[in-house]
Amino acid sequence: MTEEKPIGVFDSGVGGLTVLKSLIASFPNESFIYLGDTARLPYGSKSFETIHQYLIQNTNYLKKMGVKAIIIACNSASSVLKSDAEMGIPIFDVIKPGARQAILISKNKRIGIIGTRATIKARAYVKAIEAYGQFSIFQQACPLLVPFVEEGMSDDPITNLIIYRYLAGLLKQEIDTLILGCTHYPALKPAIQKVVGQHITLIDSGEAIVERLSNAFNYGKIEKNKQVQRFIRILVTDASSVFEQVALNLLKPYSIDGIELIDI
Amino acid sequence: MTEEKPIGVFDSGVGGLTVLKSLIASFPNESFIYLGDTARLPYGSKSFETIHQYLIQNTNYLKKMGVKAIIIACNSASSVLKSDAEMGIPIFDVIKPGARQAILISKNKRIGIIGTRATIKARAYVKAIEAYGQFSIFQQACPLLVPFVEEGMSDDPITNLIIYRYLAGLLKQEIDTLILGCTHYPALKPAIQKVVGQHITLIDSGEAIVERLSNAFNYGKIEKNKQVQRFIRILVTDASSVFEQVALNLLKPYSIDGIELIDI
Repeated sequence: MTEEKPIGVFDSGVGGLTVLKSLIASFPNESFIYLGDTARLPYGSKSFETIHQYLIQNTNYLKKMGVKAIIIACNSASSVLKSDAEMGIPIFDVIKPGARQAILISKNKRIGIIGTRATIKARAYVKAIEAYGQFSIFQQACPLLVPFVEEGMSDDPITNLIIYRYLAGLLKQEIDTLILGCTHYPALKPAIQKVVGQHITLIDSGEAIVERLSNAFNYGKIEKNKQVQRFIRILVTDASSVFEQVALNLLKPYSIDGIELIDI
Repeated sequence: MTEEKPIGVFDSGVGGLTVLKSLIASFPNESFIYLGDTARLPYGSKSFETIHQYLIQNTNYLKKMGVKAIIIACNSASSVLKSDAEMGIPIFDVIKPGARQAILISKNKRIGIIGTRATIKARAYVKAIEAYGQFSIFQQACPLLVPFVEEGMSDDPITNLIIYRYLAGLLKQEIDTLILGCTHYPALKPAIQKVVGQHITLIDSGEAIVERLSNAFNYGKIEKNKQVQRFIRILVTDASSVFEQVALNLLKPYSIDGIELIDI
């Protein structure tokens, strides 16, 4: 029966777990299979072609696992998705919901975007925002923020310095809304908010996707699960002890049904 | 004829180019094929099993290209090599030459080692040094230094801060010799020397391997090339424009015969 199928979620590493956590909290009847492609991380500094190949491989792997829908919990991989129909399964990227939330919130119509080099180069958020109307959009690639999060240095004076270095140019543009265009960045939310000040609203695309998925359930695009006994499995392509620690920490208070090593 | 074969060199990314440059300068009659496994970089935070699999795949690829010997210009990959005989071709890692140079130079027999998490965890330098005698050895993993080098931030106040953070503990141990146990680190040599002071000697394992290879030529373990018309080819598994810029810069004044995209 289709209603008993899990939802697949993938990212290059731990970043997408911030998205998974929002999904676990918001859809208590749903089961999830999270795929962390840790053997090939990070995606953000790699080429369009390579990331697109990873996107297809990860999607096919999750399809074989019998998922009913796929969430691309990675902005770099979302930014290379050519069309939702491309993969032959309901697929949701993190870009469109984040862009939509930003245009609803911005009052002065000046929006900043930070992300990996791949996401910024693909101009994925820019295109998504421009589809809604006239906005002044300012982008900044922040390639060092992912390593800082992966190292657990979210609350550190050196991290604040590097955030300030990246954001100084955007702040001069008088943006009132800043899209955190990488699923690692919510871990840096307090540090980023401190650097940009309270008058700038931060958009967490992981939170935005929950609304999108709710709509998909309500309009029958995906069938809801009826089971109460759900499962949450995590698959990784490289078994590193750091991943397990960071993962368990990020997902608290939710527990998982094990971390399995797989080969794609 | 065997003497016309190139030497294979590989690393996960640009780091090994510091080794390649030393080799190009020291062996003017030799041809080189450099393989940068940029699609799967970085190696340093991945598990023993994954890095060992990459080592075998890269070695087999270079063997198929007809190389007469292989230099593992990556400490993380060197640290998972089980034995030189394992690969069925003369193979040289960067660990043993670096360790040997350190024990020859250290006067107070207190040696520091910095490297990626994988290299430090494997204790590869510790084992190599201990084979030579009694030394006090102090290790420190510096996982953020590779991303800073890949970002071209070798000369930056924030880089100095992070180096100081990593090295403060080692400095308290009164080491007189510090092994740069990652082929990315020579790019940070001036910054590291500034932080540790002139009384500590830095060991660049890329330079150390030149001596090792000279011996291999002199003892007939590898045949010397007699050709004057040599070639230097670079193969990468991900085509990023950043790699090409950084590569051409690092190899100056030497020029290369093109960068080719391959699939392993």
